[in-house]
Amino acid sequence: MNVREIASLVGGEVVGDQGAEIVRVAKIEEAGIGDLTFLSNPKYERFLATTRASAVLVSAKLDLEHHRAKSTLTFIRVPDPYVAFLQVLKRLTPTIDPFPTGVHPSAVVDERARIGRNVALGANVVIGKQAVVGDNARLSHGCVIGDGAVIGEDCFFYPNVTLYHQCRVGNRVIIHAGAVIGSDGFGFAPKPDGSYEKIPQLGIVVIEDDVEIGANCTVDRATMGQTTIQRGVKLDNLVHIAHNVTVGEHTVIAAQTGISGSTKIGKNVVIAGQVGLVGHIEIADKTVILAQSGISKSLVDPGKTYFGYPAKEHRRAMRIEAVLRSLPELAQELQELQRKVEDLQKTFEQKTSQRTTTSAG
Amino acid sequence: MNVREIASLVGGEVVGDQGAEIVRVAKIEEAGIGDLTFLSNPKYERFLATTRASAVLVSAKLDLEHHRAKSTLTFIRVPDPYVAFLQVLKRLTPTIDPFPTGVHPSAVVDERARIGRNVALGANVVIGKQAVVGDNARLSHGCVIGDGAVIGEDCFFYPNVTLYHQCRVGNRVIIHAGAVIGSDGFGFAPKPDGSYEKIPQLGIVVIEDDVEIGANCTVDRATMGQTTIQRGVKLDNLVHIAHNVTVGEHTVIAAQTGISGSTKIGKNVVIAGQVGLVGHIEIADKTVILAQSGISKSLVDPGKTYFGYPAKEHRRAMRIEAVLRSLPELAQELQELQRKVEDLQKTFEQKTSQRTTTSAG
Amino acid sequence: MNVREIASLVGGEVVGDQGAEIVRVAKIEEAGIGDLTFLSNPKYERFLATTRASAVLVSAKLDLEHHRAKSTLTFIRVPDPYVAFLQVLKRLTPTIDPFPTGVHPSAVVDERARIGRNVALGANVVIGKQAVVGDNARLSHGCVIGDGAVIGEDCFFYPNVTLYHQCRVGNRVIIHAGAVIGSDGFGFAPKPDGSYEKIPQLGIVVIEDDVEIGANCTVDRATMGQTTIQRGVKLDNLVHIAHNVTVGEHTVIAAQTGISGSTKIGKNVVIAGQVGLVGHIEIADKTVILAQSGISKSLVDPGKTYFGYPAKEHRRAMRIEAVLRSLPELAQELQELQRKVEDLQKTFEQKTSQRTTTSAG
Repeated sequence: MNVREIASLVGGEVVGDQGAEIVRVAKIEEAGIGDLTFLSNPKYERFLATTRASAVLVSAKLDLEHHRAKSTLTFIRVPDPYVAFLQVLKRLTPTIDPFPTGVHPSAVVDERARIGRNVALGANVVIGKQAVVGDNARLSHGCVIGDGAVIGEDCFFYPNVTLYHQCRVGNRVIIHAGAVIGSDGFGFAPKPDGSYEKIPQLGIVVIEDDVEIGANCTVDRATMGQTTIQRGVKLDNLVHIAHNVTVGEHTVIAAQTGISGSTKIGKNVVIAGQVGLVGHIEIADKTVILAQSGISKSLVDPGKTYFGYPAKEHRRAMRIEAVLRSLPELAQELQELQRKVEDLQKTFEQKTSQRTTTSAG
Repeated sequence: MNVREIASLVGGEVVGDQGAEIVRVAKIEEAGIGDLTFLSNPKYERFLATTRASAVLVSAKLDLEHHRAKSTLTFIRVPDPYVAFLQVLKRLTPTIDPFPTGVHPSAVVDERARIGRNVALGANVVIGKQAVVGDNARLSHGCVIGDGAVIGEDCFFYPNVTLYHQCRVGNRVIIHAGAVIGSDGFGFAPKPDGSYEKIPQLGIVVIEDDVEIGANCTVDRATMGQTTIQRGVKLDNLVHIAHNVTVGEHTVIAAQTGISGSTKIGKNVVIAGQVGLVGHIEIADKTVILAQSGISKSLVDPGKTYFGYPAKEHRRAMRIEAVLRSLPELAQELQELQRKVEDLQKTFEQKTSQRTTTSAG
Repeated sequence: MNVREIASLVGGEVVGDQGAEIVRVAKIEEAGIGDLTFLSNPKYERFLATTRASAVLVSAKLDLEHHRAKSTLTFIRVPDPYVAFLQVLKRLTPTIDPFPTGVHPSAVVDERARIGRNVALGANVVIGKQAVVGDNARLSHGCVIGDGAVIGEDCFFYPNVTLYHQCRVGNRVIIHAGAVIGSDGFGFAPKPDGSYEKIPQLGIVVIEDDVEIGANCTVDRATMGQTTIQRGVKLDNLVHIAHNVTVGEHTVIAAQTGISGSTKIGKNVVIAGQVGLVGHIEIADKTVILAQSGISKSLVDPGKTYFGYPAKEHRRAMRIEAVLRSLPELAQELQELQRKVEDLQKTFEQKTSQRTTTSAG
């Protein structure tokens, strides 16, 4: 593809050589002849002076005069350079389809299961009785689908995923290897002798459309009712979702975060890695929770950012942290001030007693 | 079942309509006609005024006069409403048995393995040589049981569990999907050139009776001797237990907690989620460790509660946190006091020098 | 083996009974007749007075006079007692080989895959098309090797490992059960309506020689290019490595730690458990990061130790923590000082006004 064709693909405007041939994509600091690159983060702008790329996707808002004076670089101006770059990346990359096709002879499909049209089942896949797999779903090797579980259309399951009995997965859901959906919630009633009685976990997990779940995640089934991962949610790897949790639409949760039982996460929430939330709380829509934070109370105002253990509003947490960093000096200042006050007190007492003595004398 | 039958099942006393028909259970805020619900947590007591449930399990200690004056609700008085509720829940819910029955033809059982009576082995289960599987054990699809491993009676393994060679599992143990038992402990001896030599991990894991292990947990084998999960322990999902750890009887550990090597956890300990414990320490019986705490020293007094990173006794941690939250103001107060003292000092010096001057004049 | 033979195996010098027979190894506090033990950590030195071991490996630097006066214990003096102990341990322990041999008939090997000499493939192993498995590699039951993936020589994969398409593993690599290598990086571009578009993850994972990866770890493939685990790296269980990360040679990372996207870890770094690192930062060689730390900025000076959330240099963090622990008392002291200063001010004002009055009177 040449620059003109790429501009047409991404809806951009060329400033420079329209005919230059593009064969690859690359990072701006590594790009050479034949490479398309992009500038999105301003801190990389300095590379425009040195890059050897054949063309650069830039924001339509970027002032090019300055750069054009110093180089002969070809620019393609677009609304969002990164999104445009991804479009080109997809087009240029030879698509590798990592999923099996057809039903492998070693797949074990219960005769009471219902398998849609054009479904792919890899080697050693197991489909339980009364389970349903929707059209075009592709389940890679070693996946186990429990009795009565339902998978929608156009889903992709990577190897060794376990979907427990009765759980329901929507359309266009991607689940990465080793994830476990529908394991028992962690519920035990203490008995007088200190041992525990298992509380039966009789509910299910419902995963709605367009969700993606990372490798080795665990999503527990509800005690009663359902654990719900709403439409468009994205979970990174090793995330834990406890029983009866609801994760709202288009919420993204980074790796190793854990959500405790019955907590309700709003829509369009962003949760960073290794965050922990206690059970039975609610998180407002568009909340942002920064990495490793510990959330022990409901966060009711939408759109705020939190940080810390225990978490505080982000700016407040930053102010506290700033003082905390100089806490030893603060303690020392307090000590010095204590001495100063003591000295002052002594001198004062001395002087006034002197004065009294003097006056009396 | 009607209310009288339910009261008889749970050993309760009916106050209200003994004949009301119960067909389902539900949460108090969602219950309707035909539903049984329960009141355990006092903060839900307000729902007694509005619930449409056909009967409510309540504590024998609850004062009903007040509520009976305001509604025609039927009550069943019991010692523990939640436990009674679970009994009814189990009775009313159609039992789904998610485990395979019999030995699937695709299961690979070494001829030197010993399989008990009435054992179920799902599709693609692998049983190694000299391994033992006890009577009535049911291993779901894709489980791998290593050479010489021993599984007791009445165990339930969900799909894709890996039990390494020589490890031993007691009776009535439940292991959820993807859990790995017996992987090598993390032991490497540094060599002079900066690389590491693997320390052979020659011990085993022993899991005693009535343990439940969550999805995708990892329990490492000992370097020598054994890593021990004692009777009645419950592990949530994604918990990590390192080599040579002992977890004492009836201890419960919530999701994503990690216990480092050779640490010894007492009995009836409660550890919340995302807690970390360093190696080679001991935790006293009945200790409670709150979420995300970091424990770097032995906790020797039984029955205490800890919180924080690094952890402190809970009340102490709360007092520190209370001050920490107003640390910026505290720093400001200190600054103001410093100014005040300086002013006072100046005024004092001025006055006394004036006085001296005056006296002298 | 007798003591003389053991001394010869480990290159040590015997002080005591050369002919004593050794049949087992044991910890110093548990050892009995026939056992060899070792003393490495000085805090166990007191056990030399009571141990019933037939011989003890000790450092050549240990002063034996004192101990020989009090017991008839046999010593073997060596440069490093623990390393010597491991050598003996390996020799005395009957080696259990937990890996399958040969290619199991249930293994599914694509005809376009290339399998080396002397490869072992367990039951239900799946090898994708164009995949390569090197000589002497041994893949246990249920492992899935994606299309085009490459595994070097002498590798050991425990059961149920998933290696995604195109990823590359070097020689002598050990991967524990349930680990997932090559899952999609967590990349989504927000769309104006609040939903997300998946960013294709087109790169790979490269694992170099002599790496060991713990159970249920997840290592994501790069967006473009590669995620790299360099030579000699050791990952404990449940570690998460995000897309485009580089982990430098001979770095060790303890359980449940997570490294965010594009972060570059140096060589010979030591990262403890449950640590989190943000994306796009660099960690200098030989850095040590203590447990549960949160790293949000590059650490540029090699060889330093960090601790805390957010992390600080270790000594600094310890000084801050020391003050933090007495923060309530510090706040109280400040309050008392405030009262004192107020009193002083009042008295001063009173006195000077009195004096003025007196003077005036």
